[in-house]
Amino acid sequence: MTPDEFRRLGHRLVDWIADYRENIASHPVMAQVAPGEVRSRLPADPPERPESMEAVLADLDRIVMPGITHWQSPRFFGYFPANAPLAGVLGDLVSTGLGVVGLSWQSGPAVTEVEEVTTDWVRRMVGLSGAWSGVIQDTASTSTLVALVCARERATGYGMARGGLQAEPKPLAVYACAHSHSSVDKAALLAGFGREAIRLVPFDQAYAMRADALEAMVREDEARGLRPCAVVATTGTTATTALDPVGAIAEVARRRGLWLHVDAAMAGSAMILPECRWMWDGIEGADSLVLNGHKWLGVPFDCSLYFVRDPEHLVRVMSTNPSFLQSAVDGQVKNLRDWGIPLGRRFRALKLWFAIREQGVEALRERLRRDMRNARWLAEQAEAAPGWRVLAPVPLQTVCLRHEPPGLGGEALDRHTLGWAERVNRSGAAYLTPAALDGRWMVRVSVGAEATERADVAALWGVMLEAAEVESRGPRSIG
Amino acid sequence: MTPDEFRRLGHRLVDWIADYRENIASHPVMAQVAPGEVRSRLPADPPERPESMEAVLADLDRIVMPGITHWQSPRFFGYFPANAPLAGVLGDLVSTGLGVVGLSWQSGPAVTEVEEVTTDWVRRMVGLSGAWSGVIQDTASTSTLVALVCARERATGYGMARGGLQAEPKPLAVYACAHSHSSVDKAALLAGFGREAIRLVPFDQAYAMRADALEAMVREDEARGLRPCAVVATTGTTATTALDPVGAIAEVARRRGLWLHVDAAMAGSAMILPECRWMWDGIEGADSLVLNGHKWLGVPFDCSLYFVRDPEHLVRVMSTNPSFLQSAVDGQVKNLRDWGIPLGRRFRALKLWFAIREQGVEALRERLRRDMRNARWLAEQAEAAPGWRVLAPVPLQTVCLRHEPPGLGGEALDRHTLGWAERVNRSGAAYLTPAALDGRWMVRVSVGAEATERADVAALWGVMLEAAEVESRGPRSIG
Ligand SMILES: Cc1ncc(COP(=O)(O)O)c(C=O)c1O
Ligand SMILES: Cc1ncc(COP(=O)(O)O)c(C=O)c1O
Repeated sequence: MTPDEFRRLGHRLVDWIADYRENIASHPVMAQVAPGEVRSRLPADPPERPESMEAVLADLDRIVMPGITHWQSPRFFGYFPANAPLAGVLGDLVSTGLGVVGLSWQSGPAVTEVEEVTTDWVRRMVGLSGAWSGVIQDTASTSTLVALVCARERATGYGMARGGLQAEPKPLAVYACAHSHSSVDKAALLAGFGREAIRLVPFDQAYAMRADALEAMVREDEARGLRPCAVVATTGTTATTALDPVGAIAEVARRRGLWLHVDAAMAGSAMILPECRWMWDGIEGADSLVLNGHKWLGVPFDCSLYFVRDPEHLVRVMSTNPSFLQSAVDGQVKNLRDWGIPLGRRFRALKLWFAIREQGVEALRERLRRDMRNARWLAEQAEAAPGWRVLAPVPLQTVCLRHEPPGLGGEALDRHTLGWAERVNRSGAAYLTPAALDGRWMVRVSVGAEATERADVAALWGVMLEAAEVESRGPRSIG
Repeated sequence: MTPDEFRRLGHRLVDWIADYRENIASHPVMAQVAPGEVRSRLPADPPERPESMEAVLADLDRIVMPGITHWQSPRFFGYFPANAPLAGVLGDLVSTGLGVVGLSWQSGPAVTEVEEVTTDWVRRMVGLSGAWSGVIQDTASTSTLVALVCARERATGYGMARGGLQAEPKPLAVYACAHSHSSVDKAALLAGFGREAIRLVPFDQAYAMRADALEAMVREDEARGLRPCAVVATTGTTATTALDPVGAIAEVARRRGLWLHVDAAMAGSAMILPECRWMWDGIEGADSLVLNGHKWLGVPFDCSLYFVRDPEHLVRVMSTNPSFLQSAVDGQVKNLRDWGIPLGRRFRALKLWFAIREQGVEALRERLRRDMRNARWLAEQAEAAPGWRVLAPVPLQTVCLRHEPPGLGGEALDRHTLGWAERVNRSGAAYLTPAALDGRWMVRVSVGAEATERADVAALWGVMLEAAEVESRGPRSIG
């Protein structure tokens, strides 16, 4: 493709994206295709000869678009917000167009230094002290893996430089709450801790970890000959945005010598609001934390911000220094390959830089406040509506609820819940995700798409009322 | 940013990228900034109020661009090719514009199914049998980490489900060659194997692993009570594109029960050429392999193709299934979160799909053949030139050479090599990377940027001759 063809097609695709965003509410939110449908419309073999871009763009509309679930829709209330504001899209376009790979400082000085500056902007935005250093990882899952590997190495005095985990006599243990994200479990298992080494700490009525229970478990484990190594606290759990008491946990971590990693993947964005900072009070006592720029904050995926107190430790765990990656300036610079798992890296800071500058922090704060107001409004409607129940506190933007028709309980209630949620999703009018809480299904409404206004939440509420009503009347007829 | 502002600015940035690519040869290839220079021109605090996009774009030109090393330049011969053809840039733009997150099939059916189809296209392109399943990871570093964790779990019968690595009585061992990429080492260490568990197999005169030496080491280690677990073979090492004998290694792996992972991050692209397939003869005996779409093949970073023989094993190691990620169709679909480390994922297959369709496989093959011819041409020039030496076979696109003025040896020769290479890089006329080989510095010329034609290689050769000549005359005056 020549630069001139790129101009023509690029303009067309920019317009295509603008049109898409303008008309996004006209799409059913959840893709309405059946498994295998998209695949069946694509040829099994790659083309030998060039195809016209006309054909590619036609297939984009005809084959790909029906298979898209519209995360940017104002009626998307599933999982968690994963905003991709248009300024960030432009920043990412520049990154791909430049095609620069920031594996070392020399291979792209601006990749490194714009990342240093913008991650520091986020540090300031969320009120962290200057003792933290930030770096962009792809996802919170990876950030937490990095954290647990660092914890493992600190606890073992860099066992990786000797016999590795197998050479450690005392079984290490990692602490988290049953409500922590599945990525915590996964990270621990990938890092070589076994299932038995993952200790689930009891939680309170608000689904938050009990620091006293943590301390008791740690002491007991120590007495049993274990070596407590790390604790992961969550600020804003995925199911209910529960808030583990970071300060109290940090105290335990300090006393018992644990690495404290704070998973604020979703809720960390809210720390740009001074009125929310109490939610992670004590954060300065943590060793590492993750906050996804690509969630509520609004940087196009993927942009996970990982902050550490001791970057030298991180570099010592992650660094490699083969001759072909060395450069004359190595002593004076940050080489990003030593701050995470991958060697190559995109210029991801550009989208962060574009997104923050185009909006300004004040506007970001206002958008988050709007979403929290909308979530509270929805919770109020549900609290006031007969048969509906709000199941967990709503400190942020997630509302956990259930429609409980009289006389319905146990598995019948589960069927009802999954039934009406599925009706909502299949209708295409809105999208939300069910989840289990205390062993029963409920529905999470996660408010926070950039385009979502009060009217969209009100519309969702109408759709939910109707779906639950229809579901109450008849047996589940969809499947 | 409204869709209309996005149209206007998007067109402008598309033109900006087109201009950049048109004029790319006018930039000094290596960024000419000093450490800290980019950073010092950026404000320490994020803006409270929105800034004009005019200001952002002005800063892009004024602050960022001087800090870019131009990987897409026709005179970029550093590290390895990391091509970002413009059709792929468009595919990536669509991905970011859609802002869809493919964590499960339901969250973006097309994300999953276009990835299934396009990774299978690549499988067919490189001549792998239908027994392989592909998935996109971010980088080869991550793919290799995934492979070694899978190897660990196969060897331990899913020790992760019990006491983890610490509960395994026999020390596991991983085999690789001193010429394997640093990411292999790093992956093994991150996976919990210690430095002592990484066994370096001797290599032959062409820097390729000796399968007989591997077998001898494995037997010896078994006799010493170790549990050999995995071997990583490289098709195309980073320093010299050496070719480990995959078939013979696969035989050893089969006999001794090792997991064989093949790192073809760079050279895997060349397997689209039937005449190159001998280079990984025996590949069907491997358990996993990685081939970076984002290197020579030409898919904008990041797009690392990871292929496995036993996807069920991969899913068993990687899967998590919290309630909030379950969906009604789970039994019938592929959920990409279970094929790698991250939960969230971009729609990366779009750039692969655009890039292959726009060019067609035939044109890709021709481009790679051109690069190999250009590399051989350069090797011939060096072989014929007095004082120059080609240090390793040139099976692909990397030429390893040294200028050896009479009477210069040892550290003086190293200083000379680093001196003239640095002169080339600082001149901005071309960029290449030195590396160590047999304990002495040499220079790698890695041919393969999309824009590189014979004339560029000829120009590079002229620049090298001159730099070496100047360096021979005087003490190194740059620094
Ligand atoms: C609390 C929490 N942690 C971790 C994650 C995982 O995020 P990622 O997709 O970036 O790995 C999520 C989002 O799903 C989350 O809500
Ligand atoms: C042989 C080999 N393996 C692995 C890598 C690492 O690639 P990535 O940046 O995708 O992790 C490279 C490239 O640097 C390579 O040449």
